[in-house]
Amino acid sequence: MAFSFHVPVQVFGGEGCVAANADVFASLGRRCLIITGAHAAAQSGALDDVRAVLDGRRIEYTVFPGIGANPLVSQCQAAAQAAEYARAQFIVAIGGGSVMDAAKAAAWLANNHIGDVKGLFAASLRHAPLPLVLIGTTAGTGSEVSPAAVLTEDDTGRKRSVTAPQCYARYAFADARYTASCDRATTVSAALDALAHAVEGYLNPGCGSVPAAAAEQAFSLLGDGLAWLAQNDGLPDAALRERLYDGSLWAGITLAALGTAFPHPLGYVLTERYGVPHGMACAVFMRALLLRGEQYAPDRTARLYALCGGREGLWQTLERLVRVDVSMTAADIAALRERFTGVKHYARSPGGFSADEALALYTQLFLK
Amino acid sequence: MAFSFHVPVQVFGGEGCVAANADVFASLGRRCLIITGAHAAAQSGALDDVRAVLDGRRIEYTVFPGIGANPLVSQCQAAAQAAEYARAQFIVAIGGGSVMDAAKAAAWLANNHIGDVKGLFAASLRHAPLPLVLIGTTAGTGSEVSPAAVLTEDDTGRKRSVTAPQCYARYAFADARYTASCDRATTVSAALDALAHAVEGYLNPGCGSVPAAAAEQAFSLLGDGLAWLAQNDGLPDAALRERLYDGSLWAGITLAALGTAFPHPLGYVLTERYGVPHGMACAVFMRALLLRGEQYAPDRTARLYALCGGREGLWQTLERLVRVDVSMTAADIAALRERFTGVKHYARSPGGFSADEALALYTQLFLK
Repeated sequence: MAFSFHVPVQVFGGEGCVAANADVFASLGRRCLIITGAHAAAQSGALDDVRAVLDGRRIEYTVFPGIGANPLVSQCQAAAQAAEYARAQFIVAIGGGSVMDAAKAAAWLANNHIGDVKGLFAASLRHAPLPLVLIGTTAGTGSEVSPAAVLTEDDTGRKRSVTAPQCYARYAFADARYTASCDRATTVSAALDALAHAVEGYLNPGCGSVPAAAAEQAFSLLGDGLAWLAQNDGLPDAALRERLYDGSLWAGITLAALGTAFPHPLGYVLTERYGVPHGMACAVFMRALLLRGEQYAPDRTARLYALCGGREGLWQTLERLVRVDVSMTAADIAALRERFTGVKHYARSPGGFSADEALALYTQLFLK
Repeated sequence: MAFSFHVPVQVFGGEGCVAANADVFASLGRRCLIITGAHAAAQSGALDDVRAVLDGRRIEYTVFPGIGANPLVSQCQAAAQAAEYARAQFIVAIGGGSVMDAAKAAAWLANNHIGDVKGLFAASLRHAPLPLVLIGTTAGTGSEVSPAAVLTEDDTGRKRSVTAPQCYARYAFADARYTASCDRATTVSAALDALAHAVEGYLNPGCGSVPAAAAEQAFSLLGDGLAWLAQNDGLPDAALRERLYDGSLWAGITLAALGTAFPHPLGYVLTERYGVPHGMACAVFMRALLLRGEQYAPDRTARLYALCGGREGLWQTLERLVRVDVSMTAADIAALRERFTGVKHYARSPGGFSADEALALYTQLFLK
């Protein structure tokens, strides 16, 4: 089956990888903007490591903090403005998917008309983005290796994605130590997000052999971590965190090749309206996707189960970890019809998908 | 453990991938040079497929045929000259590792002083190379996804490699149908070459988790194909050819991350002086490497065996497939001391390696 496979981001990994690669930062210029979220960059130790490298190479920097979950387009514009004020030659993002995605948009807007949001979503901005360095603090998003940025529109509150080669970072650093400061809820939701990327890509009817192998790698790594999380309280140890982080990268590589299937757009609504964390919001639809997989892609689905500790094991893990407390009226659900019509992700789902099926699934899961 | 992981080449794969991606060629310009070997480009059907795409998009092309095994630097220069005469805006290479490696050098020389061989080997040529498209006809080299080109110096007859980010192709096409025209000897030697890349990378003391996962993928895929080749005459079927090709890509990704260990430089001498095909020439040292792995990297080596059908299975496969008919005098071997002194690949071998050990291994294997 046809495939495309591409990892244009150079990923450095392992303990101490930021400090060991000061040359990488120095190669990008003498002034940069550091974009962070509220706490993770500092708590994880990543910000200190980056500062030490930049100070050591006499690279000037300005910190733009406070990108929150589900970043607004206006926050990306503000970050782009900060990059312009600082005359930044490159951007370093330290955080989870929200920070990285916001930085992708900011890096691109900063070299163009910052107000041109239409051009951003159409991926038609004229000039190349500022070079971008991503430093992850969660094991989930895969944004490190993907050309996608998911943002929230200010006026509608809807999540909307930009997918373009320009959104690829130049470099990414994957030091699993930085994920140690995540609380349990974030760890679980991030790991579920990564699993969703791998499952949605793997069961995509267009998934060829090489991206499928990347997904299989993700299943082995994430399956272990999720099973541990389902069976234990507390947080995984360093070895398991590394497996989760590596798994999230392989899942991100799958995502980059194939995009996501119906769980992602269905999950966006739960995040927008009910504040459900992104990974959890996608994972709540995973069992429905797996059932379609059993029907329309039985060999792939059997292999997926085998790599994730068996069907029963995976379903038990999901049963224990996936908790979404949403209840809706029939009218609430019916009102989603337009939103769930003509979604491009449906064609990436085994056996296809439709607005009717989306509403039926919402009804089954959330009707009070 | 620290790692770097990068696949800046966009790889298209699967049956018919050339015809399905005409846009890729059109995006690179209106005139190109096609570099081929003697027969494979035509016999495999790849040249016809490329011609059809170029004709369909009205892209002019000139064919530069006849790059042989172990291409001389002067052949690369001639190809660069042809690109210049044709005012080529990009280069398409169709063939195995020799053709691809020659095209990497030609693409870089064509945009610089074609006579600057020193600059080529120092990776210091000033201008970027012409964009390069690689179309493989063997399942082995991994050159599709690596930044290395191995050439033969005209004056010394020695194999010498250029490794630089500039050697990465822009695009690669991996259609396993094109490998169907390989004869059995080429199929076996190419598959052994791929296995050597994966083994040498995986047992490298600096191999971190993500490149290791790529190598493990290669072992599963190549192990199947090599076992079949050891147990059967004739050629593998389409499904197995695809597994071999995918395996060669994963092995190439490992190679790109880690380079090769002592078998490669030791093998170069067998190719230069005795005409042993490259894959076979590296594979003859694989058992010695595996024994070092058992001693210095026992966990990795055990996992490698498990993925390749067990220790006994892999050793039997090598026993049956690796045939190198070289005999040397003690003086011949002693004369290699200088060549085998201070080789950078030794540090990439488990437990290190030395000139003394290289000579002892040559003595054990080839003393008549």
